[in-house]
Formats: sequence, structure tokens, C-alpha cells
Amino acid sequence: MIKEKLSELLTECKNCTDTELIEKLLSHYLSQRGTLYDVLWDSMEYSVSAGGKRVRPMLTMEFCRLCGGNVNSAAVFGCAVEFIHTYSLIHDDLPCMDNDDMRRGKPSNHIAFSEDTALLAGDALQSLAFEVMLSEETLSLVEPSLAARAAGYLAECAGANGMVGGQVIDLLYEDKPSTTEIIREIHLLKTAALIRAACVMGCIVAGADEVKIKAAEKYAECIGLTFQIVDDILDVTSTAEELGKPIGSDLENGKSTLVSLLGLEECRKLAENYTGDALEALESFDGDTTALKDFALKLLNRKN
Amino acid sequence: MIKEKLSELLTECKNCTDTELIEKLLSHYLSQRGTLYDVLWDSMEYSVSAGGKRVRPMLTMEFCRLCGGNVNSAAVFGCAVEFIHTYSLIHDDLPCMDNDDMRRGKPSNHIAFSEDTALLAGDALQSLAFEVMLSEETLSLVEPSLAARAAGYLAECAGANGMVGGQVIDLLYEDKPSTTEIIREIHLLKTAALIRAACVMGCIVAGADEVKIKAAEKYAECIGLTFQIVDDILDVTSTAEELGKPIGSDLENGKSTLVSLLGLEECRKLAENYTGDALEALESFDGDTTALKDFALKLLNRKN
Repeated sequence: MIKEKLSELLTECKNCTDTELIEKLLSHYLSQRGTLYDVLWDSMEYSVSAGGKRVRPMLTMEFCRLCGGNVNSAAVFGCAVEFIHTYSLIHDDLPCMDNDDMRRGKPSNHIAFSEDTALLAGDALQSLAFEVMLSEETLSLVEPSLAARAAGYLAECAGANGMVGGQVIDLLYEDKPSTTEIIREIHLLKTAALIRAACVMGCIVAGADEVKIKAAEKYAECIGLTFQIVDDILDVTSTAEELGKPIGSDLENGKSTLVSLLGLEECRKLAENYTGDALEALESFDGDTTALKDFALKLLNRKN
Repeated sequence: MIKEKLSELLTECKNCTDTELIEKLLSHYLSQRGTLYDVLWDSMEYSVSAGGKRVRPMLTMEFCRLCGGNVNSAAVFGCAVEFIHTYSLIHDDLPCMDNDDMRRGKPSNHIAFSEDTALLAGDALQSLAFEVMLSEETLSLVEPSLAARAAGYLAECAGANGMVGGQVIDLLYEDKPSTTEIIREIHLLKTAALIRAACVMGCIVAGADEVKIKAAEKYAECIGLTFQIVDDILDVTSTAEELGKPIGSDLENGKSTLVSLLGLEECRKLAENYTGDALEALESFDGDTTALKDFALKLLNRKN
């Protein structure tokens, strides 16, 4: 079923939608199994296929399309971001972190498998992200200097000065008051950094210039911040039913949020401003930005 | 103290020994800190500077030297392997894995810091490995297509079909009998894969041909297997004092080792054969292989 060769798979998928291609690629990469350690791959696959909306890979493909690049090749880099995102969720749920037994309505990875397997599945997914971006297959399709630069960008966004750094600050302020500046930093690192990697890698793979890369960074940061502010707003205004998860959890934990510091109205304004900035950033691109505009507005106006 | 620019640091270190350069580079990379999350960098630095012998980076530099490449640039890739190695030790020691409170005579990372910080420090060290190999700085010193290929090779060796895969098989057979084939597979993946990455990356960065890369792979696998067999031998023949750690631990745990399956004499022969193969593999290189020969023999004849 799974094609042995990436190029064949990409050729076959010429008329696929972006989502279809992403799903096919993710399956392709999760089928490169050894024999003795199926449980590891099962665990990796369990979380990758657990119903994520593939927002990050879609952004990579959309920015690549906008910059006139080969969208199918960009999908490989989109999968890499999805692997990093998935590993972070698995590790986040572990008992020593958030200790969450459920994720997206299913048992968390360490509940479905075991704690050690979940830890290692996360570790292996991070390696896999870099493996797929820098495989011989990928380097035959994407200019190696662009692939190297894109992968380096993702590494920076994923690590200590990016997503992981954000998780550490978040843990430090988990149950004590913080400031709007600190919360902004947490949102920028923990959430926006990986979205930024997704958007910028699409531009890099397409060979876009610095102006476009800066614009993609701006768009990504603004929609990342909007996403988090709306999250905070929904945590107090939504019902648990609408949101699909417990509400008011942040307040109960004694954690500062932008809503507790600034109030609902100010937060709403802030989110609208960021969204305005995101739309403005798109003006640096010549092509059709409708999909990216719609996505930014959808994040602002979401109810769950 | 720390140079802002990698190229300056490398120029300044022209007359350093390999070890000195590695230590300077590791410090350089661990000084790229953010402001709000010092504890994360402290935790990363704690384990990186915990007295490892830097075997893997030395191998990267030595193979690069042998293939006529720029040894200083290769040191960057050596640091990357050291970061991967260090992250694997931090995660290995966690309560859900080996639950070891001590590592190299010091409290393990999660004891010195906390479990969540240790988990995240490991995650960030893996990202950092790819960040340093693919940074703009590195890509200005090393041909990007070679850097991409080397980093891709490391990703493969570190992940599910390499080191992490080996850890999973090791966990599966932790307290039940296995076979010589399974133990060989564990040794090849858990230990030899990262040594292989170290050796092969040195060749790749030097632009070596496939014959040399294959020879480096062979050498690495053979010394990796030798190292593990000698480990098993010392576990039953050494005193705790000589070894610096408890002896007989494998047997007590009901774990099969090559010694329990084949006997001491057969194991000794096997280790000698692998070492012979390692030395033979070095014949594919024209330059001075003395250091690599000595290292292989040292691994065979070590007493602790």
C-alpha cells in the first residue's frame, strides 16, 4: 500500500488536496519500521494519527504555494513540524509534566502504552522530524542548502530558545502570578514558535527572499498570539460543552492569564489587533492570500 | 569570555587539541541563553559538563582528519553527537526508565533539578544538536549539502531505527531471557548507532567517498559491539572497585547477556574478532590511522 519511494508518492498525489497529501506522507514515514520494536512505532503512530487538524503542515504548504515553490516538497517539511508538535504533546501529558490521562478524547500515549514507551516515542518523533527533512530522498527533491536552512530554522524554534523554553517558563509560573510580558513570552515561545517554523519553512523551501520570510514570521507570531488569547477568553466565557474540555481551569490553578490581568474586553481588542497585524503582514506577498486570511480570522472568531 | 562568532572561536583554536576545541565549542553553544529560563540551560549544561570523555566528538574529528577535511568544522558535528548522547543519558536515568539517582558520581539530572526540567533539558539538547549542525554559522563554514547529509545521518542513527529503537528492545528484554541475535541488535542500535554517526559524519563533512563511509560504518559497528561485550565481561569478572559501579547487576536482574549465553571465553574471542574487523576496516584509509587503531585496542583491553 505504502509507496517505497517518496517521489513516486508525491507524483501519485499530484491532484490530492493538501490534507490528503499530508496524511499520506505521515503514513509513509510511519511505515519505515524495524522488526523488533513495533511497540515504539505503534506508540508514535497512535499519537500522530490521533486526530490533529494538521494546521502546521497546511501553513507550510500554503506559504510555499504563495512563494511559488514546489508545494508537494514543502509537505515533507510540514510533516516534520507535525512530528515535533506531536512529540511535545506526548511529553506534555506525562505524569512529571501535566499528568493528563486524556488527549483529544482518547487515552494519552503513556496511558495507552506505558510511560517509558511514551517518553521514547516522543524522543523518536523528534529525530524523525529531522530525518524526513534531511533524508537522501528529500535532498534529491529539495535544494540541499534550502533543506538545511529550513531544518535549522525548525531546530531553533523547537528547542531551548523556542518551544521547550516556553514550556519551562510556563512551568515556572504554573501556580504563581505573572505579568503580561511573561505571558506574552510564554505564548511566543510555547505556541507561536512552532507555527512560525511551519510558515517560514514553507517560504525557505520555495527560495523566498528575506522580506517574505520576515512577513511570514510576523503573520505566524500574530496568529499564534491570537490563538492563545482566544484560548484564555474561551476558558472563562465558554461552556465546557462548547469547548470540549473543562472551563475555568487556569483560574482554579492560581495561574495568571491575560484575561485575569487585562479583563475580557481588553483581551478581545488585543486579539483583534494581532489579527489585523497578521492580515497586514500578508500584503508582502503577491499571490492569493485568501486561505491565510480566512485562517487568521477563523482563529480569532472560533468558539472552541 | 565566550566568542560571539563560531568562526572566530575556531580560528582562535587553531592550535588547540581536539579535546580543548570540543570543550570550548560545547561551552559556546551552551551560552546562547534566553533570559527567563536559565534553569533549563543550567540543567542542560549540568549534564553536558558532567565529565563525559567526549569519545564521540573525538571520533568525528579523527575521521574527518583521516579523510582530509576541515577538522575544526567537524568538531561542530562532534558536539551535536555529544548533545544527543547526553540527552539520552538524562532520559535513561528518569524514574520511568532506569530510575538512576546517580550518574558519573553525581546526582542525575532529575535529582539535581526536577523530573520535568530533566525531561525538557533532554528534549532541548536533541533540538540543539540539529540547531548547531544547521545554523547559519555552520552553513557558512561547511558545504550545506554535506551538513544536511551529515545531520540526516545523525537523525537516522538517533531515532526509532537507531538509538531509541535499541532502548525499546532493551526495555522489552530487561527481565526476560533473550538470544544472541537480539542482544547483538540491542548493542548495534543502542550503542553502536551513535558511534557510527560520529565516525560517518566526520567522513561526510570531509566529502569522503562511499568506500570510506562504508569503512567508517564497519569500524564504528565493530568498536561499538566490542565495547558492549567487554562491558558484559567486566560485569562478571571485575570487582566493584575496579569498575566504579556495582558488578553482577545484569545477572541479578534475570537479564540475558552475551556472557550468560556464550560463556566468558567465547565472548572474549568475539570481542577480539570484532576488534580485528575494526582494524581491517581502517585499511580503506590512506592517512595515519594510529589514533583510531589505539582507540579500538584500548576499548578491547579496558579494565573499567
